[in-house]
Amino acid sequence: MTKKFTHIADDSPSMVDVGEKEITKRTAIAQSFVQLPDEMAEHIQDGEIKTLKGPVFHTAIIAGIQGAKRTFELIPLCHQLNLNKVSVDIQLKDNLLVEIICEARCSGKTGVEMEALTGASVAALTVYDMCKAFSHNIVIKETKLLKKTGGKSDIGQ
Amino acid sequence: MTKKFTHIADDSPSMVDVGEKEITKRTAIAQSFVQLPDEMAEHIQDGEIKTLKGPVFHTAIIAGIQGAKRTFELIPLCHQLNLNKVSVDIQLKDNLLVEIICEARCSGKTGVEMEALTGASVAALTVYDMCKAFSHNIVIKETKLLKKTGGKSDIGQ
Amino acid sequence: MTKKFTHIADDSPSMVDVGEKEITKRTAIAQSFVQLPDEMAEHIQDGEIKTLKGPVFHTAIIAGIQGAKRTFELIPLCHQLNLNKVSVDIQLKDNLLVEIICEARCSGKTGVEMEALTGASVAALTVYDMCKAFSHNIVIKETKLLKKTGGKSDIGQ
Amino acid sequence: MTKKFTHIADDSPSMVDVGEKEITKRTAIAQSFVQLPDEMAEHIQDGEIKTLKGPVFHTAIIAGIQGAKRTFELIPLCHQLNLNKVSVDIQLKDNLLVEIICEARCSGKTGVEMEALTGASVAALTVYDMCKAFSHNIVIKETKLLKKTGGKSDIGQ
Amino acid sequence: MTKKFTHIADDSPSMVDVGEKEITKRTAIAQSFVQLPDEMAEHIQDGEIKTLKGPVFHTAIIAGIQGAKRTFELIPLCHQLNLNKVSVDIQLKDNLLVEIICEARCSGKTGVEMEALTGASVAALTVYDMCKAFSHNIVIKETKLLKKTGGKSDIGQ
Amino acid sequence: MTKKFTHIADDSPSMVDVGEKEITKRTAIAQSFVQLPDEMAEHIQDGEIKTLKGPVFHTAIIAGIQGAKRTFELIPLCHQLNLNKVSVDIQLKDNLLVEIICEARCSGKTGVEMEALTGASVAALTVYDMCKAFSHNIVIKETKLLKKTGGKSDIGQ
Repeated sequence: MTKKFTHIADDSPSMVDVGEKEITKRTAIAQSFVQLPDEMAEHIQDGEIKTLKGPVFHTAIIAGIQGAKRTFELIPLCHQLNLNKVSVDIQLKDNLLVEIICEARCSGKTGVEMEALTGASVAALTVYDMCKAFSHNIVIKETKLLKKTGGKSDIGQ
Repeated sequence: MTKKFTHIADDSPSMVDVGEKEITKRTAIAQSFVQLPDEMAEHIQDGEIKTLKGPVFHTAIIAGIQGAKRTFELIPLCHQLNLNKVSVDIQLKDNLLVEIICEARCSGKTGVEMEALTGASVAALTVYDMCKAFSHNIVIKETKLLKKTGGKSDIGQ
Repeated sequence: MTKKFTHIADDSPSMVDVGEKEITKRTAIAQSFVQLPDEMAEHIQDGEIKTLKGPVFHTAIIAGIQGAKRTFELIPLCHQLNLNKVSVDIQLKDNLLVEIICEARCSGKTGVEMEALTGASVAALTVYDMCKAFSHNIVIKETKLLKKTGGKSDIGQ
Repeated sequence: MTKKFTHIADDSPSMVDVGEKEITKRTAIAQSFVQLPDEMAEHIQDGEIKTLKGPVFHTAIIAGIQGAKRTFELIPLCHQLNLNKVSVDIQLKDNLLVEIICEARCSGKTGVEMEALTGASVAALTVYDMCKAFSHNIVIKETKLLKKTGGKSDIGQ
Repeated sequence: MTKKFTHIADDSPSMVDVGEKEITKRTAIAQSFVQLPDEMAEHIQDGEIKTLKGPVFHTAIIAGIQGAKRTFELIPLCHQLNLNKVSVDIQLKDNLLVEIICEARCSGKTGVEMEALTGASVAALTVYDMCKAFSHNIVIKETKLLKKTGGKSDIGQ
Repeated sequence: MTKKFTHIADDSPSMVDVGEKEITKRTAIAQSFVQLPDEMAEHIQDGEIKTLKGPVFHTAIIAGIQGAKRTFELIPLCHQLNLNKVSVDIQLKDNLLVEIICEARCSGKTGVEMEALTGASVAALTVYDMCKAFSHNIVIKETKLLKKTGGKSDIGQ
């Protein structure tokens, strides 16, 4: 229980110095859920939310990928890194629950957990935005990390 | 149940035309929660997470405010708007549950719900980022809208 | 032929002062074309480029809308403005010619031509990016303004 | 003719995983043209558009370089990469035709074609913006790739 | 001496609420200086730093204008606003002292001082960047506000 | 005295080609000062500017770190690079003089001086912004480089 915070050196916030760390292949997978309101049920078709002609999930996938690439701008102490890959997958589960999975990969000195989490969050916000004309009875639920490899301690094998 | 989607005109996604809408004062309040792991308990002091000397919540507040201002860049079909105010408040509840409240205000033709939700989400992601050195057993929970005024249909009195 | 450049005052580039101009409703429509290579013919289905399962045009529409909103960051002497609407429509014409139409609208002191042109260009670049795995024999052709209303001199009918 | 699309995996758009690709030196050269209206003829001097005292081409060069660096933000499925060099050259040809050449270079796992094309496009849009006070009879023509080295298949030797 | 800080409400930083403020025309003029090293003397020609063929000051003017437009992204508690005008003027004074003047204007609810100061600072940094190949013996000096009109208290007549 | 400018090749500005340079560990430390007005004296407590409850310096530190990461967007001819570390330290000296030190580090082909200088400048502008409600009698003074290692010519001991 004596593990030290790595973000805070001495007196003030600063980005951790990753200069001495090795470059390894890193992956992270994050998950988020969006609970849609009952009003949406009639707009679902073939696993997508078909709204007149624009597919909601496809738009959210694009937004999530772009959001993941901008993590370093949004999260103050995140390092800049060049992602090898970002993917966002969205599935509609029972009871109008939308599951969002975002995977990020890089070859770098620091993990890509925040990139995966940010990609999932931005995709979730975009689903919210595109469905809110019907009802604001929408909840973004349980954003968390499922898996992480390539760092000191892996998670979720 | 014949309410139409406003984001989708004809064939493809587009931003809703708000040209004919009146300028009104609009507010929105969103809420998010972050469940911290038990390991964090000993680092809490005076309602903040005191980590050596960097206050986690203060950093997340700044990130949330900046994130709210960039909503139009992150969410593809959101309109640009000039916020009159953004505030983010963060409180530590029982059982290591962090409550984040983000309020956004503008005088404009379209609501500021997405700005409030984005501000809350970016603050939550920042809390996650600053605590993850201890454990990834962190969950961002229940991001939702509490209140909205100034549009056609108000929410949350 | 003595009309003066409005971007250049005295010695150096500066944004035109639009402080004395009235706020009017302004629209602009721009057009761009992308000539695809013959190799693409077999991947077209129902007016879209169906590639396994990702629709190219839908991605380009999202990119174009987002690009239009960021015109003021890309074009040095453009004013910031809050668009009332952006839409991008993409159609496949004969002979693998892709037509992109971008419309931008705002209530403001300055025209939205550059926003429409930037939206069309970013959509065209995205079509290029998504098709280039097949062949780089792609050309973005004839990006121009079709129509403009709300300013001193209207264009297009 | 069985070459597969690399941007689309399974169901939805995602950035190609370049994690297994080698880092090589990559270059790309793109070209764009802007056809100026006759009204501009009298404002040209020494190969530049001399407008009172602000040089149009110099401004467009700066914009093009900055635009190339932001390609990953504009084009949804482009990878982030750190360019070793960007240059934009602009020449006035006969008949008021402006030729823009943009060269991008990096040491990376993926090509820099989109960076060169984006730099050329943003420079072309900037030329348009700075000349449009005279006439909107301007056309951006023939944006295409001239050369590409360092990847699997080189173009334009 | 009981004037209250307007940026800080209760417990934590937040953007001031300007919702009740009137829209007025606002201007601000900021000044910065860059002291160049002696080595630069031979590269100055006609009031510019002529370096082979690229004019340093022109590049810095473009950078300053673009920087002013992005003030709200850089300064956490600044409001978004749409500038009516930004101009940057640069003059070479005696003894290799570069004077930068940035003027910002808007019609809005809050002042444009930070926009003028940010524009001047980014221009100064750009002058530094373009001259540093000769010597790092460069100092950015005395960035301050010269004038401000349109708010509660004007400065600099 | 025949050292050539590296930013300017032939006719026009371009980013220097760093493709042939080796990757080395690079550091830079920059310094800036902000002279506060006398009115601030009563608001200082424990080395911070305590304003109701928002700490000014902490906000400026966050802004400086984020600003350093965005140097390549602000300074036209700067290369993109992934910083290993950024830190900003702020101390209050005698006579209401605020000293800002920004350190940037990367493993790259080009120096990080501009990142350190930009981080210091953005932090200084943020201090200005948060104190200006009291008085605009504030001056940002003496922004300069203190140290630089890892390149051809080191500076600072």
